[in-house]
Amino acid sequence: MRAAMEAIDTAFQGVPGAFGEEATIGFRGEGATRLACKRFDDVFTAVVAGRAHYGVVPIENTLVGSVHETYDALASRDVRIVGERVLRITHALIAAPGVKLADVRRVHSHPVALAQCEGLFRDHPELEPVAPFNTAGAVREVIASGARDAAAIASKRAATLYGGEVLIDGVEDHAANFTRFILLARDPTPLEADAAPRKTSLLFGLEHKPGALAGVLGAFAQRGIDLVKIESRPIAGKPFEYLFYVDVRGDASISPLRETLHDVAQRTSALRVLGSYASATP
Amino acid sequence: MRAAMEAIDTAFQGVPGAFGEEATIGFRGEGATRLACKRFDDVFTAVVAGRAHYGVVPIENTLVGSVHETYDALASRDVRIVGERVLRITHALIAAPGVKLADVRRVHSHPVALAQCEGLFRDHPELEPVAPFNTAGAVREVIASGARDAAAIASKRAATLYGGEVLIDGVEDHAANFTRFILLARDPTPLEADAAPRKTSLLFGLEHKPGALAGVLGAFAQRGIDLVKIESRPIAGKPFEYLFYVDVRGDASISPLRETLHDVAQRTSALRVLGSYASATP
Repeated sequence: MRAAMEAIDTAFQGVPGAFGEEATIGFRGEGATRLACKRFDDVFTAVVAGRAHYGVVPIENTLVGSVHETYDALASRDVRIVGERVLRITHALIAAPGVKLADVRRVHSHPVALAQCEGLFRDHPELEPVAPFNTAGAVREVIASGARDAAAIASKRAATLYGGEVLIDGVEDHAANFTRFILLARDPTPLEADAAPRKTSLLFGLEHKPGALAGVLGAFAQRGIDLVKIESRPIAGKPFEYLFYVDVRGDASISPLRETLHDVAQRTSALRVLGSYASATP
Repeated sequence: MRAAMEAIDTAFQGVPGAFGEEATIGFRGEGATRLACKRFDDVFTAVVAGRAHYGVVPIENTLVGSVHETYDALASRDVRIVGERVLRITHALIAAPGVKLADVRRVHSHPVALAQCEGLFRDHPELEPVAPFNTAGAVREVIASGARDAAAIASKRAATLYGGEVLIDGVEDHAANFTRFILLARDPTPLEADAAPRKTSLLFGLEHKPGALAGVLGAFAQRGIDLVKIESRPIAGKPFEYLFYVDVRGDASISPLRETLHDVAQRTSALRVLGSYASATP
């Protein structure tokens, strides 16, 4: 799939059949070249190093919550967010042809996918979760290993791709299971030239004094700018201090958000605009 | 360890040798009876059902961030937070006596512990992480299995307890690695009658309108009440809506926090005071 001497279009985490690949196809189409990366961090590296024009990583799941590794990499890597997509996630329990559910003892999948299927492990206490780095890769390995006591959790698409059989379909805890993926690039220019409502992702630190976060959020509220999401992450080496990630409605280069960011910069340390892009969430 | 027909003093997650047990001893002393639970959720169940007077669960690590399962269980279970302790975490890579690092292929530990040691897996790409539900239990199983290609990540205390040998000490990514544990009880009465500075943990929902969160945080800021931590978690079945967990300085029954909570109740839905307790963080 990799064109010699030329950058790949998009890097994603996982192997063919992964949800990240499905999101990548949604962003860039079936025809764009793809680079399958082992870890989220490798996707960032591929984009930063120019091996791929774009990168696709999950940032949030509506059952499990924020993907910490993605948030942390956004802080440490010089990339921009240029788009987002929301993917409906349904998981299947998959094993080699002929394997019966009663024989399965180990269930392999990405930790986030395992966390989305806690009910399965509650209902089947004999199952031990095993956490490799991806879902479709777990299917590939379980099938290749010939194990009769192992299964994997992944998309039905992965079962088809690797010749697995679906033991249980829809093993996720809740049907309203969506993952939001972001599209990364070195170049901040967003993909879309259309009139879709825009969202802006920001990253900042705060002085530890009463009212510091209230002041920042108040600056947005005063101008009627809607807060979509707030996330805080620990700062390594500074126990119990946090970095804040805030998504707001609007484009950083357009009023009123543009003016508000001048105000917010005075109230924060190291404010970064991670990107303004077409919003895919309500 | 379990006294017949009588409630255990404290339930914790993991097996003997777990960091949760160390926190439990810190809270309740060596002499208090302890119940080792397989999952965080089992600790909550033991407290709610009255099988244990107290429960101990981790809520935050200074490298990895918030423990989502604990936050989610606080929302769904009828328990109070009555104390907190901060534990310094150092991890060792442990294997059966005689096993060499070069022979190790699989490394077993709790997902949170694995996430705290990402550098180890970057430096040793031949190692595959495997994620059972606890650290000390991983040591016990790796030693008991007799595997010569497996190791576990846990405390040196666990190595001693189960006869393992330390291959590498201090495999965590950063020395400033602390986990904050909370003490749960059905009874909201805090443990300490002393004059330690107090902290209050709150849980609430918000109407989705611009400025809703800014209004709540502004209510605290106006009265000079310091925000210690904010966490948002998804609401299952309501994609891209969130519950907010806020820790503030002060006691919910004492002015000025008491009055402020009347104001906050007007601005939020389903406000719950999870507990006021002696603070262990700066």
